[in-house]
Amino acid sequence: MQQVNVGIVGLGNVGSGTLSILAENAEQIAQKLGFRLAVKVVCSRSVRAKNLPPGMAGVKTTTDWREVVADPEVDIVAELVGGTRDAKALVEAAIAAKKSVVTANKELMALEGAEIWDRAINAGINLAMEASVAGGIPIHTVLREGISGDRVAALQGILNGTSNYILTEIERHGSDFGAVLMEAQRLGYAEADPSADIDGYDARSKLAILAALAFGERIVPADIYTEGIRRIEPIDFQYAHRLGHTIKLACGAWQTSAGLFLSVRPALIPQSAILASVQGAYNAIWVRGHYGQDTFYYGRGAGPQPTGVAVVSDLMRVAREIRSGSPERVSPFAHKRLGENRPLAVTLRKSAFYLRFRVHDRPGIIAALAGILAEKNISLDAVLQLPSDTKQSLPFVITLEPALEEDVRQAVEQMKTLDFLAEPPLAMPMEKGL
Amino acid sequence: MQQVNVGIVGLGNVGSGTLSILAENAEQIAQKLGFRLAVKVVCSRSVRAKNLPPGMAGVKTTTDWREVVADPEVDIVAELVGGTRDAKALVEAAIAAKKSVVTANKELMALEGAEIWDRAINAGINLAMEASVAGGIPIHTVLREGISGDRVAALQGILNGTSNYILTEIERHGSDFGAVLMEAQRLGYAEADPSADIDGYDARSKLAILAALAFGERIVPADIYTEGIRRIEPIDFQYAHRLGHTIKLACGAWQTSAGLFLSVRPALIPQSAILASVQGAYNAIWVRGHYGQDTFYYGRGAGPQPTGVAVVSDLMRVAREIRSGSPERVSPFAHKRLGENRPLAVTLRKSAFYLRFRVHDRPGIIAALAGILAEKNISLDAVLQLPSDTKQSLPFVITLEPALEEDVRQAVEQMKTLDFLAEPPLAMPMEKGL
Repeated sequence: MQQVNVGIVGLGNVGSGTLSILAENAEQIAQKLGFRLAVKVVCSRSVRAKNLPPGMAGVKTTTDWREVVADPEVDIVAELVGGTRDAKALVEAAIAAKKSVVTANKELMALEGAEIWDRAINAGINLAMEASVAGGIPIHTVLREGISGDRVAALQGILNGTSNYILTEIERHGSDFGAVLMEAQRLGYAEADPSADIDGYDARSKLAILAALAFGERIVPADIYTEGIRRIEPIDFQYAHRLGHTIKLACGAWQTSAGLFLSVRPALIPQSAILASVQGAYNAIWVRGHYGQDTFYYGRGAGPQPTGVAVVSDLMRVAREIRSGSPERVSPFAHKRLGENRPLAVTLRKSAFYLRFRVHDRPGIIAALAGILAEKNISLDAVLQLPSDTKQSLPFVITLEPALEEDVRQAVEQMKTLDFLAEPPLAMPMEKGL
Repeated sequence: MQQVNVGIVGLGNVGSGTLSILAENAEQIAQKLGFRLAVKVVCSRSVRAKNLPPGMAGVKTTTDWREVVADPEVDIVAELVGGTRDAKALVEAAIAAKKSVVTANKELMALEGAEIWDRAINAGINLAMEASVAGGIPIHTVLREGISGDRVAALQGILNGTSNYILTEIERHGSDFGAVLMEAQRLGYAEADPSADIDGYDARSKLAILAALAFGERIVPADIYTEGIRRIEPIDFQYAHRLGHTIKLACGAWQTSAGLFLSVRPALIPQSAILASVQGAYNAIWVRGHYGQDTFYYGRGAGPQPTGVAVVSDLMRVAREIRSGSPERVSPFAHKRLGENRPLAVTLRKSAFYLRFRVHDRPGIIAALAGILAEKNISLDAVLQLPSDTKQSLPFVITLEPALEEDVRQAVEQMKTLDFLAEPPLAMPMEKGL
């Protein structure tokens, strides 16, 4: 075999980034591999040969992905269409046709990764999915190869650039969530329908994949407690800073002897923690290993070229394996099927908590709230009241000593009935950080 | 083949960490691989079977590494003895005997890595060396696999934990270099002969390996301009802070159109840069990719278990390759042999500079120094004088606009003849940082 041939399906952001790197960086890629990685065919809804980058002159184009899968010359299919419907059909057809597959599809791999890997292993082909999480950060490679000898105890990440950008802007400028979101949409940093980003669903898919890789368990998005950032106000950053913290949409997974805690939620992170320094659209992942202790990985979370690097690096790895005739033999989703790693309800986890209230001021408020906490045996750590913001209601914060989340939630439910509250309390865990 | 068998040579820090992980984590390793990774024989000067960790009961012990290489059951030899003499003989003998090799040996790989890789490829065996640089950080895997599709434009790292610990202590406590070094030696953080760490030679070997991987060129330690941290004083941190910077022993490599700049030297790093936050014995590497932009990797630089994770992960990778019959076919030191990547003298690089003087005060000092700079066409950026420290001479700092290092050095040479100087000027580049 003189070269390994690739079929690219999907020419959106990731597809066009991938294609331009394969064209521009072809010489260095060939030197690193010892053989050429050639694009044979490109498929998208509106592809024309003349729009392909220089150096891709002889490449076939099509609007039907079935032609890519059916092409006998194609060794690897790059699935860069996204979504779960067509992408799933494409990946399954490619595997059935004994093509190796590289995918950037977080939804598909989060929902059906384990099944797709089993199919791939049974078919004796290779599968790679580095680009599905944290675009520019090679976290799959790190977990599967770089620190595979370790046993992961916990990981915590910032996996959604849009929500991190919004939180960073609220923190920097003190603007309201709604205003920052509109500006982010205007600038193209947030989608017209922003829910996947700001309600945590995008991050949840990514955490499902990472946790599966790290802990060797089949984890699906529905296993993960998820809460978005819509309720975060500028005043929350003021209180967080006063407490030596900042606020991040934290994706966390912790191994305990009873099982796994998994959550995507806004949380207070100490300002001294390295995750606190992750600004704007960057992503980062902190991994705590049982043996190797703490490691930390940081980079662009998205973008055509950073994500393109992940796809191209996967294509190179799979091409190497094809050349040497060595398919993967173990699914990354299944190195442990002993049952001890099942996800646990986060309500069973103990954390310190931040409770922010907005009240109509009157005497006895603290007494009423403290009374409810005392009934649940929850110890109050501090009560903070900064000068009021411009809103009608009076904000203040109570922080709690570590308590079972179940008890905290019950206390919060009970508090909601108090008539001096202008809105339901906002509860966030206060995490430790690397 | 039911399992892959390992022979461990060397039971120092790294060897004992490796062995304990292989023993304790054997189940999970087998689950991840789909087969067992078994230790067959352990070699060290004073090994006894009863000192091996639980689970290693049946393992042979020897004091002669030749027995490990000659053992027909051993598939992979782990070279964990360090140094270059015995280690080189061992690695070469193992390769000649068609054993795959995992090594943690930075000196050996920095000096002879390219030749050893060529031997390994010719012999059709596998070689891995993740543990040779930045123990707990899987930076080899990242460069060779995770971001292999990218083209590295620059990298900058903190690769020596001892010197970073010493600098951090000087910064935190304002103690003198000598006092901090003695304390570090007392605590076991620095060797009795500290030169390799504080004069930059250890970091230089590591940078040689990283730069070779990143840029695909044969780079040996002698190619790298190297300067240690002995002259750094508490007052330098005071000036650096005033300038919004800190001081790190920075290992840098920059690709330019003319070639590669490589250096290990104390440098001013902006406090806002993520490298500035790397404290104590931690290591970190920032990589700037042409396509993927900035990524950053952080973790323990040394220690039996973090380095052991690197060795065990390498053993797993090599074992997988042995099972699938796929040796490496391209040396990581040689993906580019086009000559355009040759190391350039750092004197050809342009940087902003920090010059710290100690003088016997008298009129006309600034005029004399500024005159020399003006002659070389170097623009002065600022002159800073903080309240004097307790020493007899008066310290102050001049910062320079970006200038060719050659010119700066000539100016510094000329300054040395000025009789008001109490000691030669200390010159450090002011780096930009991620």
